Amino acid sequence: MEISELGEFGLIDRLTEGLKPANDSTLKAVGDDCAVLRYPAGKDTLVTTDLLLENVHFDLTYVPLKHLGYKAAVVNFSDIYAMNGRPKQITVSLGISRRFTVEHIEELYDGIRLACEVYGVDIVGGDTSASHQGLVISITCIGEVAEGKAVGRDGARDTDLICVSGDLGAAYMGLQLLEREKVASAGQTDFEPDFAGKEYLVERQLKPEARKDIVDALEKNGIVPTSMMDVSDGLSSELMHICKASGTGCRVYEDRIPIDYQTAVMAEELNMNLVTAALNGGEDYELLFTVPLSDHDKVTKLEGVKVIGYVCKPEAGCAMITRDGGEITLRAQGWNPLAEK
Amino acid sequence: MEISELGEFGLIDRLTEGLKPANDSTLKAVGDDCAVLRYPAGKDTLVTTDLLLENVHFDLTYVPLKHLGYKAAVVNFSDIYAMNGRPKQITVSLGISRRFTVEHIEELYDGIRLACEVYGVDIVGGDTSASHQGLVISITCIGEVAEGKAVGRDGARDTDLICVSGDLGAAYMGLQLLEREKVASAGQTDFEPDFAGKEYLVERQLKPEARKDIVDALEKNGIVPTSMMDVSDGLSSELMHICKASGTGCRVYEDRIPIDYQTAVMAEELNMNLVTAALNGGEDYELLFTVPLSDHDKVTKLEGVKVIGYVCKPEAGCAMITRDGGEITLRAQGWNPLAEK
Repeated sequence: MEISELGEFGLIDRLTEGLKPANDSTLKAVGDDCAVLRYPAGKDTLVTTDLLLENVHFDLTYVPLKHLGYKAAVVNFSDIYAMNGRPKQITVSLGISRRFTVEHIEELYDGIRLACEVYGVDIVGGDTSASHQGLVISITCIGEVAEGKAVGRDGARDTDLICVSGDLGAAYMGLQLLEREKVASAGQTDFEPDFAGKEYLVERQLKPEARKDIVDALEKNGIVPTSMMDVSDGLSSELMHICKASGTGCRVYEDRIPIDYQTAVMAEELNMNLVTAALNGGEDYELLFTVPLSDHDKVTKLEGVKVIGYVCKPEAGCAMITRDGGEITLRAQGWNPLAEK
Repeated sequence: MEISELGEFGLIDRLTEGLKPANDSTLKAVGDDCAVLRYPAGKDTLVTTDLLLENVHFDLTYVPLKHLGYKAAVVNFSDIYAMNGRPKQITVSLGISRRFTVEHIEELYDGIRLACEVYGVDIVGGDTSASHQGLVISITCIGEVAEGKAVGRDGARDTDLICVSGDLGAAYMGLQLLEREKVASAGQTDFEPDFAGKEYLVERQLKPEARKDIVDALEKNGIVPTSMMDVSDGLSSELMHICKASGTGCRVYEDRIPIDYQTAVMAEELNMNLVTAALNGGEDYELLFTVPLSDHDKVTKLEGVKVIGYVCKPEAGCAMITRDGGEITLRAQGWNPLAEK
């Protein structure tokens, strides 16, 4: 069905049909000039936003619309968790070009709604508009954290331990794989991409998850990170953000950086440096955080969390200690679409 | 200067340099995964968002970037006021194509910053990205309202008075004028547009204001509207939104609709129906609200507010009473960029 048959308000009605708020803090959702939220006393409000543009942040040749919707929501949730908070509401703005039908946009929205269901988040507003070129997705997420308990980037202190959840570099390798298959498929109509044995990489790229479980585990074990970020631009870049904001240096150990087996195999196949991929590949959405040295025993017991290094004085700079004991200065080679064009 | 020289983080640093929060509720602004806000007990939080796309919502041939930034912020403030609230924070996401320089984006941001200064709003976050086509602006505004005092669209009741602030149709006429001068200037290098005697129309289109003063006046005079909206898609469309949400009908009087002299002259010049322009022309950002009949004396004393009709039972439908006493059924012919393409 052509979107023009429904018009803006008709499309919004259709997309948001049957939405029921899951959170007490959502007083009024879609359908007025504003959403109305009521957070209980003792809570601070967190706000984050992301803009995704077709052919800059995603390529619809190999990204299914439902996955795209899911990921677009989850990356915002990830920013809220990275402050030690819990996501509660999102607004969704879409710019839609003529080649998309109502069914296309429903598929995208299905992905957004699924992510919201999984993470207990309410869709409370948005904007829907024509776009002359391509798909535009702008999501803003609002979350809560206990008063004064938001964890920023600026609290890391000398001797703190540096920890990271999950493994790194897989989403980047998934992107390389998808790009390779896209090139291989060019001009063919019945091309079957070969992802055998690399399903994890594809999933990390197309359907990342936010680490709610880690934030829950930290709370349960009484660990309050001194600083925290999610790894969206690459470990190297994020470590430097934390050190810059905190006025510190850092050391991370090459042999401590968690890397999945499939990531290693793929790097080998593509003749790429594995550690470079893990340091600079973005979109892992793992949590990078620092804890006081006194939390060593508690943090090493957490499942899916690895201590990869320590915070040091600023004059020591930011470096990786290689397997042979050498030091390589970290550089932020993270993904920079503004420089890269 | 090319934006690629600065990169994303450099550009953000430059744009947000020297920003100082004006509101106590802004604990942490730009520079982390999220902004952190703390609203006092007894306040509800309002959230609204708008997506603006080049050549759909604005034409840079005649819209100066600074005005565009100002307007992009103000239209969001307007949605907060339309809920009887006060805007406090915004996030600003920009998609920037290659033809824009750092100076261009600074000009746009200057307009956003000016609007924030005028209305006492803090810029607390955002996202900046490359765009392959044109400029994309997505702004989310967060505001506050006393607990339970948000005014939605659904509270209008039979016999309520319908009120509107300012005058209507001028922004639409300003757009017609700008389009006319654009056509006239095509291919000429030293074209001087002729806006003499029509400055008000151009200003209403390029630099609208949100009606903070009206919300303040309502509060000062102890008037709590039963429903309220801002007029962004046209009076006719907004009246029908209120009546649909409230389950009522309405009558408005043609001779009561406030229209500026310049709007009337321009309609004459363009041979357009003046009342149609006032009913269906969008982007006025005036406040449309209903009050109980018992507030008649209070509301008629408000400067810049006019009673234009009344709310009636749903079976009577929505209509305008013409100068000769006839009735014309209202139709929402408001601006619909999704149907219009």
